[in-house]
Amino acid sequence: MQSKPSEPTMLQVNTAQAGSSGEMPKLAAAANTLKYHDDRVLMLDRRRLPDEEVWQEYTTYEEVAQAIEQMVIQGAGAVSYAAGFGLALALAGSRGHKGEEFGPAVQQAASRLRATRPTGEQLAPLVDVLEKMAVEARSAGQDPVATVVREVEARMGRADAIARKCGQFAADLLDDGDAILTHCYPGGALLYMLDHARNQGKHITVYSTETRPYLQGARLTAACTSQMGFDTTLITDNMPAFLMYQGKIAKFVTACDRISLDGHVANKVGTYQYAICCNYHRIPFIVLGYAGPRAKSPDSKSIEVEERDPEEVLYCRGVRTAAQGVKGYYPAFDITPPTLVTAIVTDKGILSPLQIKTIYGGKV
Amino acid sequence: MQSKPSEPTMLQVNTAQAGSSGEMPKLAAAANTLKYHDDRVLMLDRRRLPDEEVWQEYTTYEEVAQAIEQMVIQGAGAVSYAAGFGLALALAGSRGHKGEEFGPAVQQAASRLRATRPTGEQLAPLVDVLEKMAVEARSAGQDPVATVVREVEARMGRADAIARKCGQFAADLLDDGDAILTHCYPGGALLYMLDHARNQGKHITVYSTETRPYLQGARLTAACTSQMGFDTTLITDNMPAFLMYQGKIAKFVTACDRISLDGHVANKVGTYQYAICCNYHRIPFIVLGYAGPRAKSPDSKSIEVEERDPEEVLYCRGVRTAAQGVKGYYPAFDITPPTLVTAIVTDKGILSPLQIKTIYGGKV
Repeated sequence: MQSKPSEPTMLQVNTAQAGSSGEMPKLAAAANTLKYHDDRVLMLDRRRLPDEEVWQEYTTYEEVAQAIEQMVIQGAGAVSYAAGFGLALALAGSRGHKGEEFGPAVQQAASRLRATRPTGEQLAPLVDVLEKMAVEARSAGQDPVATVVREVEARMGRADAIARKCGQFAADLLDDGDAILTHCYPGGALLYMLDHARNQGKHITVYSTETRPYLQGARLTAACTSQMGFDTTLITDNMPAFLMYQGKIAKFVTACDRISLDGHVANKVGTYQYAICCNYHRIPFIVLGYAGPRAKSPDSKSIEVEERDPEEVLYCRGVRTAAQGVKGYYPAFDITPPTLVTAIVTDKGILSPLQIKTIYGGKV
Repeated sequence: MQSKPSEPTMLQVNTAQAGSSGEMPKLAAAANTLKYHDDRVLMLDRRRLPDEEVWQEYTTYEEVAQAIEQMVIQGAGAVSYAAGFGLALALAGSRGHKGEEFGPAVQQAASRLRATRPTGEQLAPLVDVLEKMAVEARSAGQDPVATVVREVEARMGRADAIARKCGQFAADLLDDGDAILTHCYPGGALLYMLDHARNQGKHITVYSTETRPYLQGARLTAACTSQMGFDTTLITDNMPAFLMYQGKIAKFVTACDRISLDGHVANKVGTYQYAICCNYHRIPFIVLGYAGPRAKSPDSKSIEVEERDPEEVLYCRGVRTAAQGVKGYYPAFDITPPTLVTAIVTDKGILSPLQIKTIYGGKV
């Protein structure tokens, strides 16, 4: 299951040197951390970052589903591509199936993969699309595996372009000398934003929450921005308001896992808390919205907030933190209302949360 | 340095069985966790809780000062008594000193102990008082060690009575069915409050933040309330606002390390953040103020917020959480303004933060 490929061979997304003082981290683009090759899915194990770069290798969709659930990969986009490659593995396993066996087998795999992470707005719709494409490809006498893999790869490439564009728009919101605070790992758009701001001649420093219980901020975000050469300070999740009170934070910038058409934003638990604190301190709360809402949830009620295993709250990097007899509770996301959101930045530009419906809603 | 005394021998504070479903935890009263005996200071090592009950043994004031700094003991009251016993060790070490050596030796020890933890409002004033008492006792031909130890023991007893009274007043603020949220380890008053509320026939449940980086919530508070038989749920420090949004929290109850006369409250970093979130959700923010302000800080500017070693933020229970190259920042406390405080409960009763000056200020 575990291997360290000598050299990533496929899908080299252009993550050229960024500025003079650091290189663009692998995590900036999903394609650098997730590959389909020879009926195997290769996945950079984010749980082991930043200590070591370990690649996991999977040959069945069930293994991929479990990897998604167990946070080998994370981020709304990345987990959806992983699910797509998982479906490709299922299709590869069904190559020998007769016509009447193929449909149900693909359906079963698609259901399993759809159920892995419910909050992110890309995973389930992508699995739907890919399932349909696979069935059509098979009917047309084409290889459904290649069809699905090509589609996922194309989407990863487009997603990277979108992240760059979103990041570039967001850079315009930063001023020279700004210290930004961020939460969890906001993905490539944050890194492209910082890179672009630096290219604009702005000096930006970064505060990152550690983001318990999985420590994405400590392990991923702080590692990436530090690698890029940005002055990076890690704080615990209870400190943001006090830093705002001290005047240390100019802007809060985060990503989101889902946007509803009425401007609510679902993101890693804690985001809502920091939005309230930004509002109290009159600090802009900026959301990196990438391609905008995709699942077309009309409002916050239509967003399911995933609850993960409560046990995860009782441990930190495998070490027990709590007394026996104590229960945990682990809502993985929370929902921030549009009244607390200053701007949602997508690849279309800098938007008010109340513009989302007009721009993305169509005839809802 | 490390021993496990077979039986605690001194200063058994009455922590009788509380209710039917659990006993009163040792941590309810400082005297259960800190003893002076035979020119040794015995200290229950809170860093090892809840995994094991380890008693540390110290024979010099420098060892005690380091133990306070290294969080073997914590809490504004407890650290002040530990410093007092540290001074007693210094006095014991000066028994053979001539008259002209005694004063400077005591002064040196007092300075060292005063410098251990600056934010709590009891430590420095208590060391001042004890230093004066020691010098006077010696002049009067009495044993300064016994004088100081007796004084600290008497104060621990009085502090426990104050904690009970404060907790009993606070219990009146709880309603049957309330779920309270608390942060860090608020000390005995929280436990007495819960015990008293239960005796009043109220069913109370507890949510505790884990309180990074030292995890006092996970290791101490949740352990204590769970041991007392209260349904206890641990959450990470980024979750409180979302629980409030979900309607899970009826009241927030915390302690404080310092109260200024104009009603500001200094407490474990994060308290301010939760106060803002309580305000946003119209949830009462209740401070267990024990005996009220003692250092008579007129306002928030006169409160020094201790910054601890930034490295502590980069680790969790000894395990590195952050990438190399990432800096930490660790303000140990924050300051909550009176406009966010619903009530400060002391042994005098339930007070508005704006009453503090009238009641405790004297002619300031």
